Amino acid sequence: MRQFSAERDWSGFHDPKSVLLALVGEVGELAELFQWLPAGTAAKLAASEPLRSRAAEELSDVLLYLILLADVLGIDLAVAANAKLSEAARRYPPGRD
Amino acid sequence: MRQFSAERDWSGFHDPKSVLLALVGEVGELAELFQWLPAGTAAKLAASEPLRSRAAEELSDVLLYLILLADVLGIDLAVAANAKLSEAARRYPPGRD
Amino acid sequence: MRQFSAERDWSGFHDPKSVLLALVGEVGELAELFQWLPAGTAAKLAASEPLRSRAAEELSDVLLYLILLADVLGIDLAVAANAKLSEAARRYPPGRD
Amino acid sequence: MRQFSAERDWSGFHDPKSVLLALVGEVGELAELFQWLPAGTAAKLAASEPLRSRAAEELSDVLLYLILLADVLGIDLAVAANAKLSEAARRYPPGRD
Repeated sequence: MRQFSAERDWSGFHDPKSVLLALVGEVGELAELFQWLPAGTAAKLAASEPLRSRAAEELSDVLLYLILLADVLGIDLAVAANAKLSEAARRYPPGRD
Repeated sequence: MRQFSAERDWSGFHDPKSVLLALVGEVGELAELFQWLPAGTAAKLAASEPLRSRAAEELSDVLLYLILLADVLGIDLAVAANAKLSEAARRYPPGRD
Repeated sequence: MRQFSAERDWSGFHDPKSVLLALVGEVGELAELFQWLPAGTAAKLAASEPLRSRAAEELSDVLLYLILLADVLGIDLAVAANAKLSEAARRYPPGRD
Repeated sequence: MRQFSAERDWSGFHDPKSVLLALVGEVGELAELFQWLPAGTAAKLAASEPLRSRAAEELSDVLLYLILLADVLGIDLAVAANAKLSEAARRYPPGRD
């Protein structure tokens, strides 16, 4: 993502609030795919085309802006997410309902 | 909104989570209009066409789904918002910085 | 809202992108109320306390930031929403489904 | 994430629309961190504590729900995002402004 932006001189636009709004835009597109699907069959419908490919694209867009935002903020997202998951595992031990 | 939905037999889709996702979709479209505008000139740019009309449409879409969600939940949105604003006025009195 | 902001000297913060992110924050709080409720019973659960009052508050917060954003942009939200609803009524005439 | 959810019997809640609303909730918390920061200094402020750690946590929460949603939908998010980035590189070649 960093190389992709630098090669295109796009990094000047990448202040955190702008990237965050772009992320919100992509989450909105993801929501539009699922909004009127019945809750019980949404996963099954999303397993078939054309919804499957469209969902994969929108999920990717959200991920790419999330990575870009982490990069703009100087945060290592993989390290941070692993720490968060470990913390969640400590706070909610399994097998205790 | 209620009449509009009823006349079209759309109310069957209107469970709260679906309407909420539709609201998220419209907020995403609103975000897309503003994401790359410079913060300092966004208001000025939005005062001119074509951004002005597009912003008005997206703000309206958010409002209409918000009203629909309130209706699905049986909440009088005007009463609730006035109560919230009165409460905020009490909690943050003016003139005390 | 305008008087409320002016009395507290808050209007300096109110550029469109900031208000839009505040709106996103409130939509997030609304989503958190409903996220794990079963789709089929969410409306019924939201008709009872304590969810009813909390939903009314979050809906109000979304509305108040939406009105503030419209005001910052110089858009008359009631006029715009009525125009949008009329246009939708033309595009999707009832009883033809 | 899959193991974490399975060990706690949480997967019953994980229909796509519910996970998507949880993702929206986390994006909202991320927005709340940045909403009133000046656009020009937001990145610098986010490089210092306490904002740095809070931003890392909220970015992680968004990522974890995004991964969970991809898993619920049976989508390999890394494969999908790489495909999307390659496609964007083709559509927007560098150095042509």
